[in-house]
Amino acid sequence: MDHWAGATPSPAAGSDFLQLDPAAAPSRGRTDWLTAQLRAAILESRLPAGTRLPATRSLAEDLGIARGVVVEAYQRLGEEGLTVSRPRAGTTVRPRAHASRDASVPHDMMSLLSTPSPRDGVEYDLSPGLPDLSHFPRAAWLRAERDVLAQASSADLGYGDPAGTPALRTELVRWLGRARGVRTTEGDIVIVAGVAQSLALLAQVQHAHGRRRIGVEDPGSRGAADELAHWGLTPVPTPVDTNGIRIDALARADPQSVLVTPAHQFPMGVVLAPQRRQALLAWATHAEALVIEDDYDAEYRYDRAPVPAVQASALDHVAHTGSTSKTMAPALRLGWLIPPRRLRAEILDAKYASDISSPTISQLVLAHLLASGAYDQHLRRTRTRQRTRRDAMLAALRQHLPGTQVLGVAAGLHLVVLLPDPACNDVEVAERLRANGIHTQPLSWHCHHAGPPGLVLGYAAHTPARITEAVARIAESLPDQRPRRNKMTS
Amino acid sequence: MDHWAGATPSPAAGSDFLQLDPAAAPSRGRTDWLTAQLRAAILESRLPAGTRLPATRSLAEDLGIARGVVVEAYQRLGEEGLTVSRPRAGTTVRPRAHASRDASVPHDMMSLLSTPSPRDGVEYDLSPGLPDLSHFPRAAWLRAERDVLAQASSADLGYGDPAGTPALRTELVRWLGRARGVRTTEGDIVIVAGVAQSLALLAQVQHAHGRRRIGVEDPGSRGAADELAHWGLTPVPTPVDTNGIRIDALARADPQSVLVTPAHQFPMGVVLAPQRRQALLAWATHAEALVIEDDYDAEYRYDRAPVPAVQASALDHVAHTGSTSKTMAPALRLGWLIPPRRLRAEILDAKYASDISSPTISQLVLAHLLASGAYDQHLRRTRTRQRTRRDAMLAALRQHLPGTQVLGVAAGLHLVVLLPDPACNDVEVAERLRANGIHTQPLSWHCHHAGPPGLVLGYAAHTPARITEAVARIAESLPDQRPRRNKMTS
Repeated sequence: MDHWAGATPSPAAGSDFLQLDPAAAPSRGRTDWLTAQLRAAILESRLPAGTRLPATRSLAEDLGIARGVVVEAYQRLGEEGLTVSRPRAGTTVRPRAHASRDASVPHDMMSLLSTPSPRDGVEYDLSPGLPDLSHFPRAAWLRAERDVLAQASSADLGYGDPAGTPALRTELVRWLGRARGVRTTEGDIVIVAGVAQSLALLAQVQHAHGRRRIGVEDPGSRGAADELAHWGLTPVPTPVDTNGIRIDALARADPQSVLVTPAHQFPMGVVLAPQRRQALLAWATHAEALVIEDDYDAEYRYDRAPVPAVQASALDHVAHTGSTSKTMAPALRLGWLIPPRRLRAEILDAKYASDISSPTISQLVLAHLLASGAYDQHLRRTRTRQRTRRDAMLAALRQHLPGTQVLGVAAGLHLVVLLPDPACNDVEVAERLRANGIHTQPLSWHCHHAGPPGLVLGYAAHTPARITEAVARIAESLPDQRPRRNKMTS
Repeated sequence: MDHWAGATPSPAAGSDFLQLDPAAAPSRGRTDWLTAQLRAAILESRLPAGTRLPATRSLAEDLGIARGVVVEAYQRLGEEGLTVSRPRAGTTVRPRAHASRDASVPHDMMSLLSTPSPRDGVEYDLSPGLPDLSHFPRAAWLRAERDVLAQASSADLGYGDPAGTPALRTELVRWLGRARGVRTTEGDIVIVAGVAQSLALLAQVQHAHGRRRIGVEDPGSRGAADELAHWGLTPVPTPVDTNGIRIDALARADPQSVLVTPAHQFPMGVVLAPQRRQALLAWATHAEALVIEDDYDAEYRYDRAPVPAVQASALDHVAHTGSTSKTMAPALRLGWLIPPRRLRAEILDAKYASDISSPTISQLVLAHLLASGAYDQHLRRTRTRQRTRRDAMLAALRQHLPGTQVLGVAAGLHLVVLLPDPACNDVEVAERLRANGIHTQPLSWHCHHAGPPGLVLGYAAHTPARITEAVARIAESLPDQRPRRNKMTS
């Protein structure tokens, strides 16, 4: 018998969409089942932000269930804030916390923003700002914690000082003075849950005073700008050139605050030139504006002299912040903020109202590592390792992508590669690389206004061999970027 | 020679106020010196909030320095937000973060609110809500952290999931289901920096939706009400009786949210009666209001059956929160929040914008302790110890203060003693006790509207012998509260 000729087509048994199998749905509670399946897919990033869900009629037909079930499930997801429904545009997955908050960012960029993992098919995660976590000093941390727990008083385990535990404040004051030229006292420094919390607290205080516009570097950290916007500030993109942020543009825009990365501009890597530093501080003093100095990876400099923090030159107008995220691990959530004294009491109020204080044990452990010299030792080793890796990436770029311009190489954990064709779309390039297992950030993600196409490549987290492989893979993925073969040399 | 007769009186050498010694001031920089002395005294609570600084002329005369120096120093402190100057009221120390934010709270209450320490002359700290930190399981914590660091992947040390690390979410889901009757999934629970952060995030989300009024129990946690006010909500005091919060009053006030402590009302210790629970959930469903259930010390019950969380009965309307602050140590800043699903995405956005995620290592350590049974073991021992201490305090109260009524004894880490004279001022009583080395909280501190005078006494952090001493000392300090001596028995 010929099974094919004349057989009645079987009803659709399942759906390609998420491989949903209605046979798995309980006969009662299909709505709960479908809602749970969709919710899980969204929360696990299998349906990235921007994805459009199938039309209710189509999905109902594919699954062989009542259309009302699908409608109800979509409705519930909307109520949970996971999807957005627009007339004639259907139901789409709403962007989530750690992706961009801009709902108009296209789907393909969204997949670039979510944290990559091997499960996503990412073999080489070249995210900027990630230190080599395999070298987190686990043994030293544990030894220090053993000492801390042996010596900590009961009072140390109670509710802590919102400004942070005195032992860590003391050690950081010494270390910051020594390593970053920061001038401060134990009474001025506040321990925070990373630079993210510094920005949150400063934004809250400025917002409360009606100071709602904040200059941000352009190109500049997209994550930081988004966070400031969450707290009700309006980011004012201010151009960056080879000398750093343009103070003339800043003065014209005249915001009440500005966020800068003077020691190693993110992402372009330039240093704020001396004349710009002076002009920045002069503007801030004259305009009574707040300069937020994000010292995010200033400990890593390779080819040039250390760049002292701006903070010491203008204590009244600069809020200095940094953390252990790039030197030890982002998971610690341990950073510091030195606000101008006039803002200190309000900053402490905001910190107390946010989480009372940062956890004490890890503060004491960091204090121990600073006091014993173990932190400095760790940094020295890390710096040496970073330099080797940076060199490997530079060599690989010269070999495999010689048509590209490379920026920001003198310091940090990442560099920027400008793509040679000014007309190319770096988001598409990054998408192509992502499909080939390499996670990079398109430079345009950090640009508020259109800029040159490029890629931000982190190198700190990979061995030289892996870096070379990754760059070779990038070159293979981008045939139009590779050098034309010279018939005489091939 | 008689040095005394006819000698010119020496100029005032110093001041009683803070024992300031102008001889210690550099001849240049007296303003800096004086400002620093005053600032330190304020930040170290030697000048509690509400204290009025000496008139500038007086202090200048006492110190033998120019009046302009004192004026400038006071000016700087004002700019730093540490003091407030009012015409004809002089300069007073502004209330600080962990004291009440109400500038009208009198000086004497302020000293009761600052964290006591032996340096302040506090021998017995009977603050409620402090577990016995000498029994923090340091060895178990360190053992667990050793295992965690040995097994953690590099990815575990990167930027974490704003909802918390999956291992801890899984273990907490199991534990909360088992211990508190909480019905939830890994996808619903969020790890936060203590209940303080839960309240912050919920307040931010409710505020953003224009839902700005929140019922608070009266008597009820002053700290919680102050924090909610910081985030722009208006606390609506709602009376509590022996069955818990009055739902009829709540419904009349009709706020958009309410904060409750159903398992063990703080501070009175009552359990929310079953009919009130039903009425609360019925009101919340009908009014589409949010019930925030603060499960702060529900693990400690002595004489009665466990009280299951309200949360399981109304997943859509209850946000359940709890932490390790009372079971392990406030210093951990480790808690959980289970918001209604419709708020989850916004809660995660707010968490991410606050501090990205909670620190990962301590999350993994807690997960380890939960999985291994060490947490349960610690709780069992602690519960036994607490019961013994509660019994000691009850016995001491019966012996030394038999005229007083004692409330809230069946569970928790504290109880309430109502003072027999309804006209007495419990703030003055607490001040008197403080002067005698015993730190207690006056009940009126937690009352929005006038209530019976009383004291909130924590017993968890002291041995039975110390508890008995403390209560005896209380009785000695309050002669009018003691039983009259019976001539026949004395």
